[in-house]
Amino acid sequence: MWAKGIGLFVNYKHIFAQAIDRLHEEGRYRVFIDILRNKGAFPNARCFHGHNGPKPITVWCSNDYLSMGQHPKVVAAMEEALHDVGAGSGGTRNIGGNTHYHIDLEGELADLHGKEGALIFTSGYVSNEATLSTLAKLLPGCIIFSDELNHASMIAGIRNSGCEKRVFRHNDVEHLRELLAAEDPAVPKLIAFESVYSMDGDIAPIAEICDLADEFNALTYLDEVHAVGMYGARGGGISERDDVAHRLTIIEGTLGKAFGVMGGYIAADQMIIDVIRSYAPGFIFTTSLSPVLVSGVLASVRHLKQSNEEREGQQAAAAKLKQLMRDAGLPVMPSVTHIVPLMVGDPVKAKRISDILLAEYGAYVQPINYPTVPRGTERLRFTPGPTHDEAMMRDLVDALVEIWDRLELEFRKAA
Amino acid sequence: MWAKGIGLFVNYKHIFAQAIDRLHEEGRYRVFIDILRNKGAFPNARCFHGHNGPKPITVWCSNDYLSMGQHPKVVAAMEEALHDVGAGSGGTRNIGGNTHYHIDLEGELADLHGKEGALIFTSGYVSNEATLSTLAKLLPGCIIFSDELNHASMIAGIRNSGCEKRVFRHNDVEHLRELLAAEDPAVPKLIAFESVYSMDGDIAPIAEICDLADEFNALTYLDEVHAVGMYGARGGGISERDDVAHRLTIIEGTLGKAFGVMGGYIAADQMIIDVIRSYAPGFIFTTSLSPVLVSGVLASVRHLKQSNEEREGQQAAAAKLKQLMRDAGLPVMPSVTHIVPLMVGDPVKAKRISDILLAEYGAYVQPINYPTVPRGTERLRFTPGPTHDEAMMRDLVDALVEIWDRLELEFRKAA
Repeated sequence: MWAKGIGLFVNYKHIFAQAIDRLHEEGRYRVFIDILRNKGAFPNARCFHGHNGPKPITVWCSNDYLSMGQHPKVVAAMEEALHDVGAGSGGTRNIGGNTHYHIDLEGELADLHGKEGALIFTSGYVSNEATLSTLAKLLPGCIIFSDELNHASMIAGIRNSGCEKRVFRHNDVEHLRELLAAEDPAVPKLIAFESVYSMDGDIAPIAEICDLADEFNALTYLDEVHAVGMYGARGGGISERDDVAHRLTIIEGTLGKAFGVMGGYIAADQMIIDVIRSYAPGFIFTTSLSPVLVSGVLASVRHLKQSNEEREGQQAAAAKLKQLMRDAGLPVMPSVTHIVPLMVGDPVKAKRISDILLAEYGAYVQPINYPTVPRGTERLRFTPGPTHDEAMMRDLVDALVEIWDRLELEFRKAA
Repeated sequence: MWAKGIGLFVNYKHIFAQAIDRLHEEGRYRVFIDILRNKGAFPNARCFHGHNGPKPITVWCSNDYLSMGQHPKVVAAMEEALHDVGAGSGGTRNIGGNTHYHIDLEGELADLHGKEGALIFTSGYVSNEATLSTLAKLLPGCIIFSDELNHASMIAGIRNSGCEKRVFRHNDVEHLRELLAAEDPAVPKLIAFESVYSMDGDIAPIAEICDLADEFNALTYLDEVHAVGMYGARGGGISERDDVAHRLTIIEGTLGKAFGVMGGYIAADQMIIDVIRSYAPGFIFTTSLSPVLVSGVLASVRHLKQSNEEREGQQAAAAKLKQLMRDAGLPVMPSVTHIVPLMVGDPVKAKRISDILLAEYGAYVQPINYPTVPRGTERLRFTPGPTHDEAMMRDLVDALVEIWDRLELEFRKAA
């Protein structure tokens, strides 16, 4: 298992142990909290962590933002597919794993974003990595212009494309313009950015970035994973809300957050879909998404196209929790979205607060540390949704105030 | 959508159109066949391709090798989880998406391979890419020794690690020895290979490769995706069958082929699991596998640990189909496993045979073209299993003989 020559030439075990030690030293060794959510009673869940048997908790950090993972239509659709076609697809999209469900969902997602086509991946991570790396490889000499806060999966795709990259300051259109203007007009260009940045909760100036793309003849790639389902009249994301979807080359989304299930996708012109479908190893060489999941997502997307109730409930909950935190003098960050980040600024303290909340108050919120956020900006990130009621929020804020006192953390002056 | 300056500086549409044209010219443009399998009646399915409404077909190219995707235990376990916890996990493993199902499955998989730990990924592709790229990055100066027929996902992981690579001739232990001997003993080394190569159906000399790993102090990484569930007394793969699992550093497998559902995993020493869990972006930054799928896999793995019926049925079916093809003079390739590849050697002819089989005989087998196999070795790849009966096989071979005659393809002398 471990090569016999340990200590002789290369001591693998020692190298790996050092890698783990570094995490402990920095206070960012991750402990996965073992839970089971209670379908029909979200955000309630059972926790198995640090004691025997399940203990009731409230989940404050789920990305199942609208609780669609327990929606009766979603559950019924998954059960139906399970009994119709079985558990898995049994193959790649090209070899036996292309079902009628996949084709229907791609049509539904293309329609959601007003695009000619869509393509499903096994995850949002894979959709970003596979699309960005493949697209840029197909464009000789392509330069990618990337927002500095882009998600790890976009960074992976850009790096794996092997092409040149220019990083622009977060949401800084003037900086992006400078970088675009500095390059040869004859070189292919791609601007990659997100609509909602999930750790801060701010929003990109999409229209202005599209203006620059027009001016400098660049393609655009917008990650809407923290917006699809939640923004726009039909859940088409910020690009629908701002009426700019038609101006974007590629819109990328997830099936695992607001839609409540699992998977990722892109929507674009049919030719781009055809190119990615035909050339991206991360799409070609993998078993397709289980038809059971696809069926559930179909029900979820269709429901959220015609129902605003979940979106309104989420926005109301987020506004209420921000207000309660501000009133209590807690250092809530200036998010304009459904994300409620509370700044701590230290990995050890963030973990300590999270541990106390779970152990003493049954409130589950994970500390967010490097590399998910920059060092020194460690935080707690709350995602209230339509199933969090005001009593839960008041209990949470009371608990936070007590812990802030106990750990002698700084309060802000109440707004 | 398309940048305005088309024709002016960079004509993106033209570049993409050329990429698609190349596929048509080479006869390897892929058409996904739209099907729905019939749970409870595998390998029967409905096909929606090229006509109105569903038409009954027999699937000959599924990687749901043992038909576990329709097993009553698997279906019941998925239904139970769906009603217990809902559709998706709602988060990454670190943030809200770590369920009791995940932990149980990792324990079950570690036990299957006799390892201390296991780690689940969203797919086999991701498990290979994430593990290989992360492992090699953590070992300064690491050189990876890679079998020339390794899967695209392993190649992606090796390339994305940025480390040096030496490719050894397929299953050629002497060549591997030469390459290992040529390197500095003080440099970390990793040998990456597969047990069953899925397009040829041959098997690696695992024990001999482990001998070399011992001699040259190298780590070993074995991809068993086409073997887990199917070989070994409990479905632990070729490494169980050959009693060498304990000698391998990392064993990688899939949950989407013989286990019938979706996902991938590695099994290894706990410290390696901890390192990958903590450092691999493809593991960290992605929504975890739906607990519904995990629950189904748990039932599948547990069943195949104690039942040999499916494995025996598969081996008998594969032996029978190979025999029938040999008797008919069809150019079946020399596979020693459950894979039954029929050589065609031309992408256009392979597609033509596949089209006729589907349209006229209701037999679905996908042509396998570059880049899945080298150019000039295009083939049809059959995966008979415990649910394919002898009458189905005789019908298939009769159809193939008629098509071989019609297209004036060459027969071999009957064995």
